[in-house]
Amino acid sequence: MGFPVVGVVGGGQLARMMAPAAIGLGITLRVLARDPQDSAALVVPQTELGDEDDLDALRRFAAGCDVVTFDHEQVPTEHLSRLETEGIVVRPGPAALVHAQDKLVMRRRLTDLGIPCPRWAEVRSSADLEGFGAEVGWPLVLKRPRGGYDGKGVRLVNSPDGAADWLAEGRALLAEERVGFTRELAVLVARSPHGQAAVWPVVETVQVDGVCREVLAPAAIEADHALAAQQIALRIAEGLEVTGVLAVEMFDTQAGVRVNELAMRPHNSGHWTIEGSRTNQFEQHLRAVLDLPLGDTSMTAPQVVMANVLGGDHPDMYPGYLHCFAHDPGVRIHMYGKVVRPGRKIGHVTALGDDAEDVRDRARHAAAFLRGDIDG
Amino acid sequence: MGFPVVGVVGGGQLARMMAPAAIGLGITLRVLARDPQDSAALVVPQTELGDEDDLDALRRFAAGCDVVTFDHEQVPTEHLSRLETEGIVVRPGPAALVHAQDKLVMRRRLTDLGIPCPRWAEVRSSADLEGFGAEVGWPLVLKRPRGGYDGKGVRLVNSPDGAADWLAEGRALLAEERVGFTRELAVLVARSPHGQAAVWPVVETVQVDGVCREVLAPAAIEADHALAAQQIALRIAEGLEVTGVLAVEMFDTQAGVRVNELAMRPHNSGHWTIEGSRTNQFEQHLRAVLDLPLGDTSMTAPQVVMANVLGGDHPDMYPGYLHCFAHDPGVRIHMYGKVVRPGRKIGHVTALGDDAEDVRDRARHAAAFLRGDIDG
Repeated sequence: MGFPVVGVVGGGQLARMMAPAAIGLGITLRVLARDPQDSAALVVPQTELGDEDDLDALRRFAAGCDVVTFDHEQVPTEHLSRLETEGIVVRPGPAALVHAQDKLVMRRRLTDLGIPCPRWAEVRSSADLEGFGAEVGWPLVLKRPRGGYDGKGVRLVNSPDGAADWLAEGRALLAEERVGFTRELAVLVARSPHGQAAVWPVVETVQVDGVCREVLAPAAIEADHALAAQQIALRIAEGLEVTGVLAVEMFDTQAGVRVNELAMRPHNSGHWTIEGSRTNQFEQHLRAVLDLPLGDTSMTAPQVVMANVLGGDHPDMYPGYLHCFAHDPGVRIHMYGKVVRPGRKIGHVTALGDDAEDVRDRARHAAAFLRGDIDG
Repeated sequence: MGFPVVGVVGGGQLARMMAPAAIGLGITLRVLARDPQDSAALVVPQTELGDEDDLDALRRFAAGCDVVTFDHEQVPTEHLSRLETEGIVVRPGPAALVHAQDKLVMRRRLTDLGIPCPRWAEVRSSADLEGFGAEVGWPLVLKRPRGGYDGKGVRLVNSPDGAADWLAEGRALLAEERVGFTRELAVLVARSPHGQAAVWPVVETVQVDGVCREVLAPAAIEADHALAAQQIALRIAEGLEVTGVLAVEMFDTQAGVRVNELAMRPHNSGHWTIEGSRTNQFEQHLRAVLDLPLGDTSMTAPQVVMANVLGGDHPDMYPGYLHCFAHDPGVRIHMYGKVVRPGRKIGHVTALGDDAEDVRDRARHAAAFLRGDIDG
């Protein structure tokens, strides 16, 4: 029994950030990427090029791996089921992963498990939507069950007219009440095949135009409220038999939390753990999918803030990067090796300290500097 | 001006541990390794195979790099001088590096700088050695100026007879008094070309048979004593115009510290910084050789202990690795991907916490477990 090989389907920044963890653990990482310039392909020697929609490419890739996992959810569920029947170890398995791939499947299952969700309905027609709108009020949130991320595939509609094009596609849609929330929270848990689970502190996520901008760890909420949110995430991980990292995005409301979205992989809301937690989400994901004992999730500083660096108008980030380091020697900068395009997630920064406001200001300033919004 | 490429001569675990730092920083790492199974070659896509003794191999390698640095000192100084004259940026430069390559050059220079050293002499004959022994007492420490590490090239001699074979080689040797020390210390500093320097807390190194076994951070010494040791390391870095990380190994004596050895690269005495410091030595080395602003060197926990994992009699480490994680979820394990051979450094573990004894026990236990000295 030697050190195992983990295959990651997808070559984005999440796979990239698994590489340092794998190097430390002495585990071999393989990546299935679409392009040799993909973020992870640049740093992982054992990168194979291929398309996750292609069963044969998946099969060839999986043949060299002890376990196959993911850096995104856009892998056909049926391909994964097929790999499983062929004896490939897929974690999370397709029966769990489908809940992060299909929002209707997720809502049905969470509702069965008694997990607090926004009120929701499966809608196939204007009449369905009209009826649900009459019940929960307008505007409401309409979602395509599959393929959405970062606000894509999600729409706020004021009437059935606003959904005419999607309804015309003839597929079921997910309609949800628009939840009046005070803040958005996320809870990250890791669960291993033998059932061990570990949860990180609850964080607040700050979204702008459907894209995560900042993550504040820990969220400034009462201890019992945080515990309730963690327990919900742990119940979901157990109920869906997740293996690996599960991110549960939640709305915080006067009446308690409501689960918004699930992701079954390391998640943007957990990038703060790279420096901010004794065990980061990338290492924990590898440990979980390999059924290794999970690591300590305690924080390394009282306050940690992560801010995403989105592409701005300046293709050359390097001058801003130099200024950023010089301005604040304590800020942690992560670049993903991606070509700059406006709005694209190309990196993130993390600040740590004792004072929440100060730490947030430092992270925000560094991210703005890198983006080119502040002159040196 | 894009993101730079750093070339590392040498494919050992020090180059390997630079890879996670480079991935985070968005910097491209290239490695010149001797063997595709070298520790760093396993994890760095841009690995070239070649021998550092071969000037043409070095030249080809350097051509694709913005800066060339090292994971060991065994590179001919004259090759590096040649590369410099050809316009290659070499950091640390050969004029600095020679002090980590040649112990006689180092002793002369440190003495000129007024740095406290053991009493020493350059010896070429039995008579030289006899004279020096009469002055400082027997036994004394005899060193080959070049090529030694981990106790190799170092010998304790009771009389000139014990040096006959080395003296017969006809090269100058370094003789040093045997210092009666209370403990061994190490100070790690980083210095950049524009002269910025950053120093980590002084650590105690525990050596067994000339090989580092444990590193205790911070060393349990008085604040003013620690400050004096740090100032010595900073004076050396400045005096020798080091760029990159400099490790200064010292003997602690009743009369103050005495400098033992220098290394101009990340060093075993700094592995604790991976989790134990806000900026680890591998990232700091990359920042320093690129003339990027240096990062925060403060500790992430009051007490940090690193223990080396040396190869034992069990070629398969994986069962011990599983037990180790399960036994102590807080311990950090690093494996280098190296084939197990008795006594070889194949990994290290780091424990963090509040109580020095407890942290040391945990690190020691984990290392012994991995080595196979303790049964599950």
